[in-house]
Amino acid sequence: MSLLTVGSVAFDALETPFGKTDKIIGGAATYITLSASYFTNQNNLVAVVGDDFPQEMIDILKDHGVDTAGLEIRKGEKTFFWSGKYHNDMNSRDTVDVQLNVMENFNPIIPEQYKNCEFLMLGNTAPAIQKMVIERLPNRPKLIMLDTMNFWMDIAWDDLMEVIKLVDVLTVNDEEARQLSKQYSLVKAAAAIQAMGPQTVIIKKGEHGALLFHGDSIFFAPALPLEEVFDPTGAGDTFAGGFIGYLASTNDVSFNNMKRGIIYGSAMASFCVEKFGAERLFNLSTDEINERVAKFVQLSAFEIV
Amino acid sequence: MSLLTVGSVAFDALETPFGKTDKIIGGAATYITLSASYFTNQNNLVAVVGDDFPQEMIDILKDHGVDTAGLEIRKGEKTFFWSGKYHNDMNSRDTVDVQLNVMENFNPIIPEQYKNCEFLMLGNTAPAIQKMVIERLPNRPKLIMLDTMNFWMDIAWDDLMEVIKLVDVLTVNDEEARQLSKQYSLVKAAAAIQAMGPQTVIIKKGEHGALLFHGDSIFFAPALPLEEVFDPTGAGDTFAGGFIGYLASTNDVSFNNMKRGIIYGSAMASFCVEKFGAERLFNLSTDEINERVAKFVQLSAFEIV
Repeated sequence: MSLLTVGSVAFDALETPFGKTDKIIGGAATYITLSASYFTNQNNLVAVVGDDFPQEMIDILKDHGVDTAGLEIRKGEKTFFWSGKYHNDMNSRDTVDVQLNVMENFNPIIPEQYKNCEFLMLGNTAPAIQKMVIERLPNRPKLIMLDTMNFWMDIAWDDLMEVIKLVDVLTVNDEEARQLSKQYSLVKAAAAIQAMGPQTVIIKKGEHGALLFHGDSIFFAPALPLEEVFDPTGAGDTFAGGFIGYLASTNDVSFNNMKRGIIYGSAMASFCVEKFGAERLFNLSTDEINERVAKFVQLSAFEIV
Repeated sequence: MSLLTVGSVAFDALETPFGKTDKIIGGAATYITLSASYFTNQNNLVAVVGDDFPQEMIDILKDHGVDTAGLEIRKGEKTFFWSGKYHNDMNSRDTVDVQLNVMENFNPIIPEQYKNCEFLMLGNTAPAIQKMVIERLPNRPKLIMLDTMNFWMDIAWDDLMEVIKLVDVLTVNDEEARQLSKQYSLVKAAAAIQAMGPQTVIIKKGEHGALLFHGDSIFFAPALPLEEVFDPTGAGDTFAGGFIGYLASTNDVSFNNMKRGIIYGSAMASFCVEKFGAERLFNLSTDEINERVAKFVQLSAFEIV
């Protein structure tokens, strides 16, 4: 089934304890579509960049089967730029620089051929824009998933509430879940968020795994314990892309299939953190992904006798 | 098979956002033996209290089949006392008061009938005392498990290294694992600790579950997502008691059985935090425990198709 992803395509400059990069390809929609490309070949992107964005970076997406007809290139404008520096423990980071540029007035134009998408992924961006996307689709997709962050809770609460009630799946990290729900317990937080609209809430806990709340059911997926996290940038988006890419490819939105989606998403995220930016997502093989998924099975399998 | 637990039996006074207690029964060995009592009936305790320790508290242990022949009651001395106050997030606490009292010169005397124990649990106490216990046993138990904490790493490093190399299983929390190994990555931390002696390392991550490293294999057990953590005191010891109690009852120290032990231990810990101190461990039924274990199965089961 066809997947439409709307979000940022950007330049990132990263610094971790292991090194630093110049401007590399970044942005939520980049990670999401690259990750989803390993599952679905109806992988449509709506985003905006400036004319400083090199063709080679667009080609990376195209080479992975991402349809870039919806990637607007704005003449005389600059691409969204984010620069961040990670602390030694890799769990926290400082934003060094943000230049919104073209994202300041992102007006997502959805090509006609994308409009009947069955799966819609709204990457982290202004809630008003996320809502605009839903309104521009003639038919409601089978599944709408939304990612957001604390920034929008701080400055665009009402807009966020408006869009949240329209979606099926919300992904946030644990801190964001707490801020959004005003509940410390993640069980209570998920219930409060479900009451805002989405039947399904995924709480990402980074190295501590992810929780999937679906109706009254809970599933917990561990993160793969890694020797080294090289660069966590984009891990959450890669997770989301693997999850929704897997759902789209199987056209199954049941709880049991969402569990599998969480495992595939977690496997993709575990690759993402192994190199700078999205680099590790450029050349994965199906065998590598299946081996990684098998590690998750080993990691969490037990039998009560 | 018979289990011997050596550790503290104490008075605790607790304050959490939900309320506070006067002196209630506490101490690592209390939680361990109470938790283990749901699995094994050869549940022997070596500990020391003062003559201020009320018979009713000893009776709680006896009522659970704990053999208290090894509980020394020292005349004219006072019981170990700890008082703590939890912060609002329940993940951190301040020690309000510690009075070592009888623990200052704990000299664990092991009754003759305990000496051939197959399973030995060394609760958190001075490493020199933990080592003394091992030396006082004529035959090496089938499995020796040791719990320790950052305090001993700060003040008794060499003693800790001496005893660690004698044990099979070490349990620590994630911060302690990092301090002990000088590694941030828990995978590297576990490998470094294994090189110190224990083949098996259990890293407790509280609400984030537990990791079991056994040789080259890793198992991850989630913690049950709870609506409310009422009082986390003793959860780690309850976990350890459930784990080793289960191993002792099945007399099986294989990796697969240790996985089950981790799940039983996690289930017991999930009860412990529901009430103040050890109260929730006083009256559990086998049905309740099995239902709780079934929740862990539900929580982490998935099938890759």
